[in-house]
Amino acid sequence: MNPEEIRRAKPDHPIAYLIAHRWSPYAFADRPVADEDLRSLFEAARWAASSYNEQPWSYIVATRADPESYEKVFSCLVEGNRAWAGAAPVLAIGCTSLNHKYNGKRNAAAEHDLGSASAQMALQAIALGLHAHQMIGILPDRVRELFHVPEGVQPLTGIAIGYLGDPASLRENLRSRDLTPKGRKPLAEFVFGGSWGEKSPLVG
Amino acid sequence: MNPEEIRRAKPDHPIAYLIAHRWSPYAFADRPVADEDLRSLFEAARWAASSYNEQPWSYIVATRADPESYEKVFSCLVEGNRAWAGAAPVLAIGCTSLNHKYNGKRNAAAEHDLGSASAQMALQAIALGLHAHQMIGILPDRVRELFHVPEGVQPLTGIAIGYLGDPASLRENLRSRDLTPKGRKPLAEFVFGGSWGEKSPLVG
Repeated sequence: MNPEEIRRAKPDHPIAYLIAHRWSPYAFADRPVADEDLRSLFEAARWAASSYNEQPWSYIVATRADPESYEKVFSCLVEGNRAWAGAAPVLAIGCTSLNHKYNGKRNAAAEHDLGSASAQMALQAIALGLHAHQMIGILPDRVRELFHVPEGVQPLTGIAIGYLGDPASLRENLRSRDLTPKGRKPLAEFVFGGSWGEKSPLVG
Repeated sequence: MNPEEIRRAKPDHPIAYLIAHRWSPYAFADRPVADEDLRSLFEAARWAASSYNEQPWSYIVATRADPESYEKVFSCLVEGNRAWAGAAPVLAIGCTSLNHKYNGKRNAAAEHDLGSASAQMALQAIALGLHAHQMIGILPDRVRELFHVPEGVQPLTGIAIGYLGDPASLRENLRSRDLTPKGRKPLAEFVFGGSWGEKSPLVG
């Protein structure tokens, strides 16, 4: 089996194609992504839901066509992610504005809504034959310094974007990650009814 | 124009159907949702990406078929949301486990990854002719108490799920929300290149 067959979802109940086919590869092909496809990815993020329609998300993005910017973004990943993400033709940093624009108070949904936007981006990638791999392992202080990120904005995630590559291009420890299924908890373990930990009768 | 035409995305660049058609209605129809459709919604959440595949999300869910549980969930919404969400046949609370299972430390992606899972749920809703409206306005302490939510788990969002209703069923101040377009910032305001606030050349 190829990584695509191994790693994509094995749903117990029917789900939409984009959701069933999304997974986070380690191997990326040496093939650039068209600018118009990248615009569609960020457009998908743009239309995510957000609390008070704050749209707290921002992205710093670089492609290998601009080596200087690419290197800057790449250098903001932790070492474990630099071991593979440098093969992706596009790297981004996901940031979120922590405070509400209308009153300056902490937006409890700030991180949550960045997650929604990036999820939509990752699904749009599938629609275009691309894959996105999100990482929490970044160096936020380095992002702040290199890109002059203002106070009140939290750099939170890295995102590698590109076409699927050959896992043979990876070091052994990473190769096995692209060739090992990643399961999920059953619904009964996270969809609850009358009380925490008590599975909802809806999930069978 | 009907709310569907008014409220759905007006993208500047092509995006997938599910993403373009997702929006958060206030008016819901008095029509139950099939259990199998609800299973697909949570299945979509289940396959979201998460840091270390922690899957920190959990949901407490109730339908109007179980009035006691439904009332309990409903009572955990803030007053502003109780003004409309009680028309939805399904209500859920989105919770996230704040600490990593493997070392007990704070998972920086906990809220983010709940956002990803709920975004996938909301898109799966569109695939089934349903809509989901997420709310940050809940009473977390009441959720903890009524549903015995353990320490280390944060109740974060409410989610109303159902079929679109007639905005005429809403009070005037809410009706206008279902009949007013909700725009988004242009890409140039949140997709940055070499420095924060400097639009990426990729977005045109």
